[in-house]
Formats: sequence, C-alpha cells, structure tokens
Amino acid sequence: MYDEWNKMLCGAPYNATDPYFYERLLKTKELILHYNQLPPSDSKSREKALKDLFGHCGVRPVVNSPFCCDFGCNISVGDYFFANFYLTILDEAKVSIGNHVYIGPNVSLYTACHPTDPVERRNGIEWACPITIGNDVWIGGSVTVFPGVTIGHGSTIGAGSVVIQDIPDGSVAVGNPCRVVKTVAYSPADALQNASQE
Amino acid sequence: MYDEWNKMLCGAPYNATDPYFYERLLKTKELILHYNQLPPSDSKSREKALKDLFGHCGVRPVVNSPFCCDFGCNISVGDYFFANFYLTILDEAKVSIGNHVYIGPNVSLYTACHPTDPVERRNGIEWACPITIGNDVWIGGSVTVFPGVTIGHGSTIGAGSVVIQDIPDGSVAVGNPCRVVKTVAYSPADALQNASQE
Amino acid sequence: MYDEWNKMLCGAPYNATDPYFYERLLKTKELILHYNQLPPSDSKSREKALKDLFGHCGVRPVVNSPFCCDFGCNISVGDYFFANFYLTILDEAKVSIGNHVYIGPNVSLYTACHPTDPVERRNGIEWACPITIGNDVWIGGSVTVFPGVTIGHGSTIGAGSVVIQDIPDGSVAVGNPCRVVKTVAYSPADALQNASQE
Repeated sequence: MYDEWNKMLCGAPYNATDPYFYERLLKTKELILHYNQLPPSDSKSREKALKDLFGHCGVRPVVNSPFCCDFGCNISVGDYFFANFYLTILDEAKVSIGNHVYIGPNVSLYTACHPTDPVERRNGIEWACPITIGNDVWIGGSVTVFPGVTIGHGSTIGAGSVVIQDIPDGSVAVGNPCRVVKTVAYSPADALQNASQE
Repeated sequence: MYDEWNKMLCGAPYNATDPYFYERLLKTKELILHYNQLPPSDSKSREKALKDLFGHCGVRPVVNSPFCCDFGCNISVGDYFFANFYLTILDEAKVSIGNHVYIGPNVSLYTACHPTDPVERRNGIEWACPITIGNDVWIGGSVTVFPGVTIGHGSTIGAGSVVIQDIPDGSVAVGNPCRVVKTVAYSPADALQNASQE
Repeated sequence: MYDEWNKMLCGAPYNATDPYFYERLLKTKELILHYNQLPPSDSKSREKALKDLFGHCGVRPVVNSPFCCDFGCNISVGDYFFANFYLTILDEAKVSIGNHVYIGPNVSLYTACHPTDPVERRNGIEWACPITIGNDVWIGGSVTVFPGVTIGHGSTIGAGSVVIQDIPDGSVAVGNPCRVVKTVAYSPADALQNASQE
C-alpha cells in the first residue's frame, strides 16, 4: 500500500481509491478538528498542534482557525509563518513555505490533479505537483495557487489572484491569471541580515 | 404560503420575505450544523444525513465538512459524488448534479438572483435559475458557478474559475469569465460501459 | 500603546507587532467563536451579539454563521443588513456599510495592507484603508473588495468579482478586475420614500 503513497510523492500517477489514503485523510481530519477547536488564546497548544501536524514547522507559527489540509505531513513551513482565517492546503505533493511568509484569509494551495479525460478520471487516477513559496512572500487574501507553482522570494501576490504559473523573486503580481505588474528589490543578503537582528 | 415556494421553483419572481422561507432556511441550518459536527470517520451517519438533506442522493456520496446550503431538498446528486471542504450551494432553484462528479474545495453554486434595480431589490423580490452539472464532471477548487449555468458531461472547470455561461460536453474551461480552452473526447456510451464494470 | 491603534485608524503606517493588537484580536476571536455557536433560531441573541461586536449596527441585522472579522469595533452597518455564510472582514480601517445592503456568501472585505517591499514587510509595518459601501448595495457571492474601495449607492457587484477601485452609484459591475457593465437609475429621494413606508 505504501507504493501508491510513494508514487504520489514522486509526482507519478497513483490510485487515489487505495484504502491507505482514506485512513491517512481521516487521521488528519481528526487532528484538524482538534486544532480548530483549540482556544485562540492558547498559543502554546496551538503551536504544538501545528508542529505535530506539519512535516516541518519553524519557530512562532500562527495559523488562524479555521484551517484545513489533506495530510499535513507534506507541508513544510519556515520561521515566523502567519496564515489568516480559512487557509486550505491540498498537500498531496510537498508544499514548501519559506521564512517570514504572510498569507491572507481564504487562501488555497492546491497540489492535487485529476485527469481531464473523464474515463481516466472516474477510475481514480490522480497525481500531484509540489508548490514552493519562497522567503518573505506575502500572499493576499482570496488567492488560489495551482499545482506546480513556485512563488519566488520577496514577492507579493495581490488579493483575489489565481496563480497558474511561476512568479519570479521580487515580483508584485495580481489577477486571474496572475501576472507580474511590478518588480521590487530583494536581496537575500539583506534578508539574512534582518533575520539575525531579530 | 406555498405559493411563494412554488413560484421560486418555477423561476418566477417571489417574495423572499415570506415567513415560510425563514422557517425552511432555519430547519436546514439545523440539519447542516448536525452534519458538520458528525465525526469524519462515521461514514454511515454522514451518508444518512446527506440522504435526509438532499432531494435525491445516489450511492456513496462523500461531502467533506464544512458544507452549507439553503434548503437541501432542491439539490439532486448522482452516484459517487465527491465534494471537498467548504462547498456552498444556494439551492433556491434546482441544482442537479450527475454521476461521478468531483468538486474541489471552496466551490460555490449560486442559483439565487436579486434585481439589479435597487428599489425592487429592497422590496424583497427574488428569483432563481437552476444549475445543471452533467456526469463525469470535475470542478476544480475555488470555482464559482452562476445561476442558470449548465456544465456538460465529461467537462473540467479549472481552479479559480467563475462560470457565467454554459459549458458544452467534453470541455476543459478556465478563467474569469470561464472560457473553453480545450475539448476532450467524451462518449456517454463509454461512460455507461465503465459504470457497469464497477 | 494606543498610539499604534490611533495611527492604524488614521491610515498611517503602524507597528502591527505591538502587543495591544494581539490582545484586541484575541478578544474579538472569542466574541466571534461565541457568535458562530449561537443557534440559528435564536435571532434575539444573535442580534445582540452583533450589536456588541460592531461599532455601529442598525435595526434587524442578519449575519449567517460562520462569520469572522479582526476587531469588529471598526465595522458600522446600517439598517436591514443581510450577509450570507462566510463573510470575512479585516477591519483594521473603518468598514462603513449603508442601509439595505445584501452580501452573498464567501465575500471578503479587506482593509489591511502590508508593504510590497519585503524588508519593510518583515519588520511588521502595516497600514489600512477604509472600505465604504453605500445604501441599497448588493454584493454577489465570492466577491473580494480591496482596501480603500468605495462602492456607491444602489450598485450591484456580480459574483466572483475582485473590486480593486471605486464603483460609482447606480452601477452593475463584474469581473476581475471589477468593471462597470451597466448603469441603473438610483434616486436617493426614492430610496428615502421607500424607507419611510416600511
């Protein structure tokens, strides 16, 4: 049964009807139910729950409830992660999020793909493509990110955007489909210097 | 009072301030609260609750919580329906969904219309137009479907789309407004053959 | 500490990492948790909770749960306000909503801004721009409204729109970015006359 899980993580087509997935999804749903019922003031328990849920979790994560995801273990978030209400992550593939990332409310990160061929689709074949979000990124509210997308370091995605292709480092991008409208200076060296001052 | 309900179902203008609607909406809200609190692992109770809620419900429905709708009784779903987190359906008119339909997270199906004339609108006049989704359709995450829209058999709607007009059978469509970008083969005969093999 | 709060309300840059904000956000989260757990049928308690939460609240407000906002006290709603499921308001600046406003499900009103410069952003500098929604406005489902936007009296915003600039009185507007596609008659005098007949 782990074969299908490994295929999934490699980006290969896999059989999503395998019972192993059902068990894993169920287990995550229970962790998420627990997380979403924790008191907003109990930041210690909330942080611990996120560290249990995510594959990797940096220092001082804040994820406002409600939050939901499929597995959790395929999500990696860096230091000082902040996500506002209603973040949805379908983490069939890896979702890697850098340091100092801000995510507005109602944002969705989708890695899962079904075939566009209806007969293949109904047979339960799926695959997934990783999403990568760099350091110092701000994703505005109500943004949707497609499977396979990389959003570069220091970039800003305007509210309501649908990001269907990669966004380079230091971009301000907006729209459906999301397009770069401005470039900003982003020096990883400056960023490192800032980090060390905290 | 049933007059206004019947007008609503016929697509005629009706008075949404009629107390009968309030009672019906309240009753559905209670069923939905119950549904959304059922344990994810209790698939039997979840399936039963959906069958109580929907006007028609085929075999093996899966609707991830949270889910919400206005009445429920005007929703018909075929066999093997799957909807992910945060499906919202305003079912003032009929919402007919075929067999083997997959719906991503954060999808909204809206049948309800208010007048664009502000004076008519504040007097509580509304009407509603049915939504029809064929067999073997995949609606990606964060998609909004307008009143009156039909999505044809075998079609795929890309994530983040806003579907304001009909999409023919065997289409891949995307964007705001949603437009067909590709056509795929879809033979209802093949689909039937597949169904009988299950 | 009130200095940063006052800067925020004036639209000036403020330090969002000030602990005063954390306390205020937490207090609102608790009020909202309480509101979202009130029975749908208990309209008296629901109305009272909204009046406690909002800075100003007119007669007969209806806000379907779940609802969320950041502070609540910076939100002002007129008479006969109706908002459907999943309204999200980030009210770092004033959000002023007129009389007889209808808001569809999954609508987001965002006043909060972060710098697009990544180094400034990670230092916690923010600012906010007020949102103003006139009388007799209908905002369709799944609409996102940007900081600083005014939507004029009598206007209609189509479902799925992203409103990035002001919409004049008596407009029908739609799309991402949202653009005026039609103009309707809207006389404030007629509106007043109607109001007095209620």
